[in-house]
Amino acid sequence: MTEETVMSETNKQILLASRPAGWVEPSNFKLVETPVPQIADGQVLVRNHFLSLDPYMRGRMNDTKSYAAPVKLGDVMIGGTAGEVVASKHPKFAVGDKVVGMLGWQLYGVSDGTMLMKVDDRHIPLSAYLGTVGMPGVTAWYGLMDICAPKAGETVVVTAASGAVGSVVGQLAKMKGCRAVGIAGGAEKCRYVVDELGFDACVDYKAGNLWKDIKEATPNGIDCLFENVGGEIFDTLLGRMNAFSRIAVCGLISQYNSEPYPMKNIGSVLINRIKMQGFIVSEHMERWPTALQELGQGVATGRIKYRETVAQGLENAPQAFIGLLKGANLGKQLVKLI
Amino acid sequence: MTEETVMSETNKQILLASRPAGWVEPSNFKLVETPVPQIADGQVLVRNHFLSLDPYMRGRMNDTKSYAAPVKLGDVMIGGTAGEVVASKHPKFAVGDKVVGMLGWQLYGVSDGTMLMKVDDRHIPLSAYLGTVGMPGVTAWYGLMDICAPKAGETVVVTAASGAVGSVVGQLAKMKGCRAVGIAGGAEKCRYVVDELGFDACVDYKAGNLWKDIKEATPNGIDCLFENVGGEIFDTLLGRMNAFSRIAVCGLISQYNSEPYPMKNIGSVLINRIKMQGFIVSEHMERWPTALQELGQGVATGRIKYRETVAQGLENAPQAFIGLLKGANLGKQLVKLI
Repeated sequence: MTEETVMSETNKQILLASRPAGWVEPSNFKLVETPVPQIADGQVLVRNHFLSLDPYMRGRMNDTKSYAAPVKLGDVMIGGTAGEVVASKHPKFAVGDKVVGMLGWQLYGVSDGTMLMKVDDRHIPLSAYLGTVGMPGVTAWYGLMDICAPKAGETVVVTAASGAVGSVVGQLAKMKGCRAVGIAGGAEKCRYVVDELGFDACVDYKAGNLWKDIKEATPNGIDCLFENVGGEIFDTLLGRMNAFSRIAVCGLISQYNSEPYPMKNIGSVLINRIKMQGFIVSEHMERWPTALQELGQGVATGRIKYRETVAQGLENAPQAFIGLLKGANLGKQLVKLI
Repeated sequence: MTEETVMSETNKQILLASRPAGWVEPSNFKLVETPVPQIADGQVLVRNHFLSLDPYMRGRMNDTKSYAAPVKLGDVMIGGTAGEVVASKHPKFAVGDKVVGMLGWQLYGVSDGTMLMKVDDRHIPLSAYLGTVGMPGVTAWYGLMDICAPKAGETVVVTAASGAVGSVVGQLAKMKGCRAVGIAGGAEKCRYVVDELGFDACVDYKAGNLWKDIKEATPNGIDCLFENVGGEIFDTLLGRMNAFSRIAVCGLISQYNSEPYPMKNIGSVLINRIKMQGFIVSEHMERWPTALQELGQGVATGRIKYRETVAQGLENAPQAFIGLLKGANLGKQLVKLI
């Protein structure tokens, strides 16, 4: 693609049109067409091929104090992207470079190189840099390795086990010699988690026997919990934790759209001397190189498996995001933009 | 006191007669008279001067899985004691030695020397070895120093601030250069915490303005929370935690006698990347020598202050224990046995 053809195309963007009250609605977003931006010295223009959809985006739609500033009304929605440099006035990037960055819900994005990373898509597909070999993968790696720190023979439980983060947590746990147990919604997801990803067991939380099924799947209790969901599932799992167990609190997706679930088993933290820690992976950049190397090797050799749910076209991003929040996806949720 | 006079006296013991359903009742205990025990080779007989009453005892009255085995029905209630060796067939203890141990709710106890520690009551009163220079003091020290690890200038909040543990937490926090804020029940306790112990502020949770008063007392939020109480107070404090704050979960006395309070602010663990950890001080014996040295020095020099609420006579122990669970005491709750 030459610079001329780029400039003749139109950029498409999805803006935050209104803040959701409870569940996200399509009307919270607005699709606009704008000119493809010009670049100044020190900048690059990227044609995005893939947009990553992630649960954290729900928090950025609120106007409340959190660990990151909210997206402003009328701004392009925040989001991770993978694409190709189509124009460059930056010494470190050339046209044709494959890059991942945070260029948002749009076809074209401009960057000054900050937080833009060149990637090699010869052995690892470009889209994987938004999933297993990207932020979700490092999230799994950091929470498991640095917070849970499981030992061989221990039982690791992960909620949202078929998702972009959870699927990596369980596979890394298996590589560490642990029993890996997933919690997921529905028989199909559970089959995928056990049969394809190699978890030892999976509990379908929609089956209606949560406590009994968790007990059966964790005959020796739980030593490490990687928590993505929160709510009743988290509360139930708290009752199954072992002495000196660890909990990495990565996400609480069940309550992003509703009132918090009233937790009754916090006493387990004291009774079982649990260490529970919340974390945001972007605050631990010093661990990314190690994590990405291990994850990249795992994907390139086929030892770490993953699936993607891919929506086609930017205009379908809002519906795909709403689906993600409701658990409609299997594996990493992406939007293909090209 | 000679061995002869000892042997002619009768031992008194308080047994666990029944398990409480909710609040502890006097009928859960039974006072009995038994002969003063004979000692065998390798044993010592101790006349207890003080019995320590502590919240953890409530848990031992239940027949449920916890970190320690329950007291059996008909057994002497478990408890820390300070007293004097009155007969010894043990090479390391002599008649007249002052000792602290876990000899239970009784006037006389036999020990084989395990967990029995000789103490020096020339500069530190014997009773203090059950409080500030004993298990409660080390509990405060460990949770604050090793779990919270506050830095100078940070805000440390402790619940049950006028109690045996809480009072030490706040004074150690001040010695570390922190802002120390207590939560206590009633104006008298709050006055004691601020005026006598030197905390910067104290919130009376019974005053009816919990959130507003906590906000005012912690203008820069909370960096370290030392949690003894649980329930609504804990849940409210969670909403005031800073990014990267730490919570040492030491006790949850508010729910030892009732259904757990439904916690709604667990999301703060994620939003603020909190590290929360439950602990039992007896599992960290390697830290006791350091802690006891610092605490003993603080008490001997008057730098660490404390108060005691002392019930007179073993027969009054049950009522004093029930009072402790309801917050009737100020400082360390003891029973004088002599």
